[in-house]
Amino acid sequence: MYAIFSIFDKERVAAMQRYFIPAGDFGADSVAITGDDAHHLARVMRGEEGDRCICSDGVSREAIVEITAVDKNRVEAKIVETLEMSAEPAVEVWIAQSLPKGDKMETVIQKGTEIGAARFLPFVSERTVVQYDAKKEAKRSERWNKIAKEAAEQAHRNRIPVIESVLSWKALLKLVSEAADGAWICYEKEDGFGIGTAIRRYFGSRDSRTDEIGAPRKAADGAGADSAAEGKPSRLLLLVGPEGGFTEQEIREAEAAGCVSVSLGRRILRTETAAMVGLACILYESGEMGG
Amino acid sequence: MYAIFSIFDKERVAAMQRYFIPAGDFGADSVAITGDDAHHLARVMRGEEGDRCICSDGVSREAIVEITAVDKNRVEAKIVETLEMSAEPAVEVWIAQSLPKGDKMETVIQKGTEIGAARFLPFVSERTVVQYDAKKEAKRSERWNKIAKEAAEQAHRNRIPVIESVLSWKALLKLVSEAADGAWICYEKEDGFGIGTAIRRYFGSRDSRTDEIGAPRKAADGAGADSAAEGKPSRLLLLVGPEGGFTEQEIREAEAAGCVSVSLGRRILRTETAAMVGLACILYESGEMGG
Repeated sequence: MYAIFSIFDKERVAAMQRYFIPAGDFGADSVAITGDDAHHLARVMRGEEGDRCICSDGVSREAIVEITAVDKNRVEAKIVETLEMSAEPAVEVWIAQSLPKGDKMETVIQKGTEIGAARFLPFVSERTVVQYDAKKEAKRSERWNKIAKEAAEQAHRNRIPVIESVLSWKALLKLVSEAADGAWICYEKEDGFGIGTAIRRYFGSRDSRTDEIGAPRKAADGAGADSAAEGKPSRLLLLVGPEGGFTEQEIREAEAAGCVSVSLGRRILRTETAAMVGLACILYESGEMGG
Repeated sequence: MYAIFSIFDKERVAAMQRYFIPAGDFGADSVAITGDDAHHLARVMRGEEGDRCICSDGVSREAIVEITAVDKNRVEAKIVETLEMSAEPAVEVWIAQSLPKGDKMETVIQKGTEIGAARFLPFVSERTVVQYDAKKEAKRSERWNKIAKEAAEQAHRNRIPVIESVLSWKALLKLVSEAADGAWICYEKEDGFGIGTAIRRYFGSRDSRTDEIGAPRKAADGAGADSAAEGKPSRLLLLVGPEGGFTEQEIREAEAAGCVSVSLGRRILRTETAAMVGLACILYESGEMGG
């Protein structure tokens, strides 16, 4: 007797290898897997005709597919079952991280992608130590995107987080005031106001439509409806400083742009740890950590 | 005119270099800083007579001290001001981590110490891949303790987390049933019960003294008062599996020992990320992330 393979078996689907493919390779009835992913599927996983995996275009389509042809640089597969894209958080958290030393940005991108960040905004602030080198930008950007793609596949995310080009401090603040529904800046000298209080006030104000500190800036300004009113997910920014932290002036400028300055508690976290912990707290409060 | 140095200036205290020293080197009026710390203070920091730093015995005493004598292997200092030890969480979280591959245990110890774990319990479970080598145990243990000490100094913790010797699965479960007020086991196949719900139920039951799932096991058993009733901090265990996760039988055994099986949400976290995120969620809910 043979085991009957059910495509509806949740565990099997969870265990399937996942690939993000370009939207152009995602057809109505079939998909093509090319490049590194084709190599991985054909050589590393030893995929054969009839084997199944999951393909996602990282935007709006995800499906169980069955391999129909294997070539060295290209695997073709037919769509067997369209899947619901339900692994993304209901809120969009953007991590704005002042460029840290060494390979810490890679840690922030890898762990942040697993935990559920929607976007990464590397930026340069006064105490950023890393020299920004435009010539190395393309190579670094490619590497960061690869890390995000692999972490998203591993974490069973439906989308690959976007990684922006390195921003100036001014450009970041412009983005905060124009695009964010809520923004928090981590400040180790912040005394009274913890991220817990700030996040709860934000989500509380979202429910009751009151106008407190930490409420959506646009709504507070009366400049327009916030994302929730438009039916879009809330866009929340978390600003994290470099190893030496933010200057007092930067905190004042960030507050003027609509950020709320918050503490992450009485223990001093390394910059890459602050990003992960802040993100986990926001997603926890929004009910994303398993309710 | 000279700036007047106030030892009560909070920022100055926060910026001071910190050292954990053996309790035996912590006298009534003076301290001795020896070994690597003496080298660091004398050579790396170029400390001189009259300079100040913070010393802690990692258990019950912490003070601002002023250097009185510098030698290559020993720095002597007099106690200027005793400090309150207030950076420790009000709950004790113990991270039980099935030995992960590579240097991931080091990541768990470093980040977990920063975030606020009280103790680390490495253990071996069915799908642990790492070969346990008793001969290498001493060296590895020394390295882990050094990482915990340095992370605790960096994070301004008052205590260095304890790192237990590697436990068997059975020994871990014995410890869960005998020593924990609450215990959660991370299970990626757990469908309904999220860590958020579990943690809130635990803290809710602590407030209301009801007897729900996730309530303190000892209280639920009627086997005695829990830690809170004795005025001790709650002792909460978080069990995290290896790369391949726990087996179903292990989950059943853990539940029989008093653990609640929890999900960390719809995204699949790497083992070292799960430990950090679970810890951050527990401390967030207990009000430790800046309230």
